Amino acid sequence: MYIPTFDDVKTAQERIKPYISKTPVLSSSFINELSGAELFFKCENFQKAGVFKVRGASNAVFGLNAEIAAKGVATHSSGNHALSLAYAAGLRGIPVTVVMPHTAPEPKKAAVRAYGGTIVECEPSTRSREETLAKVVAESGADFVHPYNDARVIAGQATCSLELLEQTGGLDAVVAPIGGGGMVSGTCLALSNVAPETKVYAAEPKNADDAYQSFKAGNIIAYDDPKTVADGLKVPLKDLTWHFVSNHVEDILIATEQGIIAAMKLIWQRMKIVVEPSSAVPLATILNNKKTFAGKRVGVIITGGNVDLDKLPWMNS
Amino acid sequence: MYIPTFDDVKTAQERIKPYISKTPVLSSSFINELSGAELFFKCENFQKAGVFKVRGASNAVFGLNAEIAAKGVATHSSGNHALSLAYAAGLRGIPVTVVMPHTAPEPKKAAVRAYGGTIVECEPSTRSREETLAKVVAESGADFVHPYNDARVIAGQATCSLELLEQTGGLDAVVAPIGGGGMVSGTCLALSNVAPETKVYAAEPKNADDAYQSFKAGNIIAYDDPKTVADGLKVPLKDLTWHFVSNHVEDILIATEQGIIAAMKLIWQRMKIVVEPSSAVPLATILNNKKTFAGKRVGVIITGGNVDLDKLPWMNS
Repeated sequence: MYIPTFDDVKTAQERIKPYISKTPVLSSSFINELSGAELFFKCENFQKAGVFKVRGASNAVFGLNAEIAAKGVATHSSGNHALSLAYAAGLRGIPVTVVMPHTAPEPKKAAVRAYGGTIVECEPSTRSREETLAKVVAESGADFVHPYNDARVIAGQATCSLELLEQTGGLDAVVAPIGGGGMVSGTCLALSNVAPETKVYAAEPKNADDAYQSFKAGNIIAYDDPKTVADGLKVPLKDLTWHFVSNHVEDILIATEQGIIAAMKLIWQRMKIVVEPSSAVPLATILNNKKTFAGKRVGVIITGGNVDLDKLPWMNS
Repeated sequence: MYIPTFDDVKTAQERIKPYISKTPVLSSSFINELSGAELFFKCENFQKAGVFKVRGASNAVFGLNAEIAAKGVATHSSGNHALSLAYAAGLRGIPVTVVMPHTAPEPKKAAVRAYGGTIVECEPSTRSREETLAKVVAESGADFVHPYNDARVIAGQATCSLELLEQTGGLDAVVAPIGGGGMVSGTCLALSNVAPETKVYAAEPKNADDAYQSFKAGNIIAYDDPKTVADGLKVPLKDLTWHFVSNHVEDILIATEQGIIAAMKLIWQRMKIVVEPSSAVPLATILNNKKTFAGKRVGVIITGGNVDLDKLPWMNS
């Protein structure tokens, strides 16, 4: 297992610069007052393809040598990594195949196709995803870019917190959502090198709290297909992300479905930005743990803005 | 009738600086490709109180002398001007009374109250609004700040296009939504002075096309309570805004309800920002008039982001 280093992050930052946006950091005086903290929202919903994952995907795609690149890339993903890999592969002009659960939101499938990706459908379980992917890779010779358990991907995601730190000039803490742990691992990798005093918190839905349970138990615990509105956060930790989470994360905080939906609506109403449910999990946990963050300068990673506008979660609640 | 001058705009810009945000200008490569033009969206949805009208309201409120200010301010409004006047009066610490139709969206009423405003309800017709307001003013001695037919308000709104021009470095055209004409008048006032080569287009819902009909007829035509999803654009032109519209506007373009809703959804999906229906009217007209704007650098005024998230227009269509 190769653990990415801070040098990999610096290489990634240079490599992906032409393909990504430097996203803005926004604040809301209303939400600051409500939380009792000073919150800096890193708005990766404004990122290319609408999500931070384009950072890691671009780092992987543009780091391939020509021979490997010619065979293309492949992945499995609940949506956003698929979109991001298709975006990056499209820019480089190489083939991309994506294994997606047939239950994935239709707008995400359409967007993958719009970027020129080929979709192979599977069942909505981790096992079915991995088996289908193995078959695709064996047949095509494509390079497998794992959505998070991949050193290139983690180094790419790490560039987000570097930017955030530079834009805010120092933070007491950063709170990022955790699914497989790619963003959290990147955040740990970046901050432990450039701002070791900044604490990293992971925010997870109670309904998919495998990272929280793993963190408490001291070893990886995985669920198969948990149910949560934060559909980007269903996947389990893997060895590489577990390395960062178990060594560098201060704590994992959890949020109820109701709390996530309320925080998402609050962000839409007060900040006038479209964010996906996963992006609202950090704010939900901050509002649940006010004492932890009181008076602190806290970075909040808004991971993405890819939602199905016809099926907003508060419409069913 | 006092017609505001460019000196009034410069005074307004200095006066309101501490109370408003310099809002960002965003672009979307997808929407540029779709429209065939280079569009610069001036995002007043990120403005204080969620709407550009805080510019004009702040200019009026902070321009009052102490004696008049002590008696407070009053207005009638379909919502956003009310919110903005309450915001500005709250900052100055003076009373504010708002006459609102009882049909106004509940979130707008709640927001006016949250800023410390007193609401007096009326019927949803222009006549009822004006009569109720006259009574309030007679009883309280409050200074009436008209939502758009007021030189102070127009000078305040004009600061938006000054900023846009400075942020973009020159435009072939600016397209702004038109209801009563406050934003369009301010845009004409600013651009005719600093960029007379930039054409000003007004964008109006077909279902409330009184400004369009007025423009064609050469005199003000008013409707009473037209029905459109763009609820900020129902009010008619008045003498002061008619002055600017009839003298400086290049053309008035109209959009169907379906076109407005589709443009609104497109902005949410692709730009990841929350905008109200009125803000989508300019894009709807640009997509309807591609030849007019082909290859041009076009400013698009996103007027505000105050929507009821529980009642999104595409949910009923």
